[in-house]
Amino acid sequence: MIKIQEIKAEDLNPAEFIAQKTKEISALVGQGLAINALSGGVDSSVVTMLGHKALGSRLKTYFINNGLMRRGEPERIVSLFKELGVTVEIVDAQKEFFAALKGVTDPEEKREAITQTFYKSVFGKLVKQSGAKYLLQGTILTDVDETVAGIKRQHNVFEQLGIDPQEAFGYKIIEPLVQLRKDGVRKTGKGLRLPESLYNRMPFPGPALSARVIGEATPEKIETVRAATVILEEELAQTPAFQYMAILHQDRVTGIRGGKRDYGLQVEIRCWDSIDARNAKPTRLSYDTLDKLVKRMIGEVSGVVSVTYNITPKPPSTMEAV
Amino acid sequence: MIKIQEIKAEDLNPAEFIAQKTKEISALVGQGLAINALSGGVDSSVVTMLGHKALGSRLKTYFINNGLMRRGEPERIVSLFKELGVTVEIVDAQKEFFAALKGVTDPEEKREAITQTFYKSVFGKLVKQSGAKYLLQGTILTDVDETVAGIKRQHNVFEQLGIDPQEAFGYKIIEPLVQLRKDGVRKTGKGLRLPESLYNRMPFPGPALSARVIGEATPEKIETVRAATVILEEELAQTPAFQYMAILHQDRVTGIRGGKRDYGLQVEIRCWDSIDARNAKPTRLSYDTLDKLVKRMIGEVSGVVSVTYNITPKPPSTMEAV
Repeated sequence: MIKIQEIKAEDLNPAEFIAQKTKEISALVGQGLAINALSGGVDSSVVTMLGHKALGSRLKTYFINNGLMRRGEPERIVSLFKELGVTVEIVDAQKEFFAALKGVTDPEEKREAITQTFYKSVFGKLVKQSGAKYLLQGTILTDVDETVAGIKRQHNVFEQLGIDPQEAFGYKIIEPLVQLRKDGVRKTGKGLRLPESLYNRMPFPGPALSARVIGEATPEKIETVRAATVILEEELAQTPAFQYMAILHQDRVTGIRGGKRDYGLQVEIRCWDSIDARNAKPTRLSYDTLDKLVKRMIGEVSGVVSVTYNITPKPPSTMEAV
Repeated sequence: MIKIQEIKAEDLNPAEFIAQKTKEISALVGQGLAINALSGGVDSSVVTMLGHKALGSRLKTYFINNGLMRRGEPERIVSLFKELGVTVEIVDAQKEFFAALKGVTDPEEKREAITQTFYKSVFGKLVKQSGAKYLLQGTILTDVDETVAGIKRQHNVFEQLGIDPQEAFGYKIIEPLVQLRKDGVRKTGKGLRLPESLYNRMPFPGPALSARVIGEATPEKIETVRAATVILEEELAQTPAFQYMAILHQDRVTGIRGGKRDYGLQVEIRCWDSIDARNAKPTRLSYDTLDKLVKRMIGEVSGVVSVTYNITPKPPSTMEAV
């Protein structure tokens, strides 16, 4: 296992870091072609800009729509990057992902189904078609820590796990952000002159909304949690929280609607105060804010009769539920 | 269906009500024998005292330990009634109830398993052995409303459902509290000079802690939610809330303990402000109180990695989860 030298955010000089990483990427890729997948999260956005700076049109960037994204996400991200002079191509792979997720309830198996679909069925093909030998990835140090500790199987840390990606999927992974934590990545994003809506963006998990559904991630359940996420993101937009999320439970609870029993859905809200995702505390949202969230969730999201707020710190909780 | 004339708490004269109900019970039972099951809740405690007042030793009161009670509950209740001059016999029926609950996950089926075990296997036998023809029950108006609306199948409202209990289980049900709601029952309990710890007691569901476990109510899960309930009741003892409860979810969530992944249990806390249980709002507990609750739950209850607080009003939520 490679020992990674952490660069703490307070020690990070963004301009120097960007110059160095750009140089490294240029040197590694040489006159070759590189490819990357942009998810719209902070990490992949920063990697996309670093790669673009280093390689220009020799970097091909795809946005893979897996059907698990937030509402309007693919179009919004592509449009933001277009304004920055970066061309991103959307690949519609919704059918492939939902087919792979069908009947899968275990969180690890869900994550694995998404990883396999992403690499083998979708991105792997794009890589082969493109002829690119270099894959840029937004792995950060926290991902590596958690994979090594066995907390979560990240889809982007084959190298740290001792799996040779060359052998496994036929390409070489470049991870320019692997020495940073989230705060360092944001600082780099700012240094790259990304819009604040990108570099100050909430973290969002690799398996996207499928990580926000406990149990099987059907198109219907994804749509439910997507609607809850829209409300949460609208209502908490002004909150300085590190991250917030809506989670659709598999457990059903009793409710009443129109005087009748309605055995319905429960949505769990989590909202975290954190610097670097290693430790986190639930944000002390006001009850007025919580009331407003609940009112909209039960009024606007079909089937929801119950909403909870998570009040556990990390550890022993994790930030995501599954 | 019988139309029941509600007596509102503010219109209730406890002394008159007690005198009238005592007279009615005496007249109905005559020189016969009556029997009742005391659960330790407000309703059955008030009924026990009314029956005792009306019938003295011609009322035989049992406390059926179904294994689903709060910690130390059977001994505590029997001891409280002993001080009031009422003899209550504890019947250990834990094995029968857990046998009936084995493999049952659906809330309705759980409730039905408990009802059937209670009436047929346990209480039905006691009734037959005792020779009593009259069964006193603590049904209140809210139970009837909810049964009629189909929200919840209460175990004590055969009469209102149009089922003849004479035919169904071989005895006649007397329901002296059926015109009251919870606040009226408490006023009557005070009038009966019950200790405040009984008449001002939180409501507790018929299926007891099995209603606080989503999915199968195994002895292990009951023990987990029992431990969580002890903490909740200790920490919130001074809260003027109408009712509070800990619910053990079936859904598992990711957690971390000692740096390692721990796919663990989630406990949901509900704490309600309400007058009569028809409508309710989550109590605005302070975050300091919530933090203390969480700290104890994750520290003292084995397997718990996540705690949520329910923030939904009734309706559309119900007070209990299943």
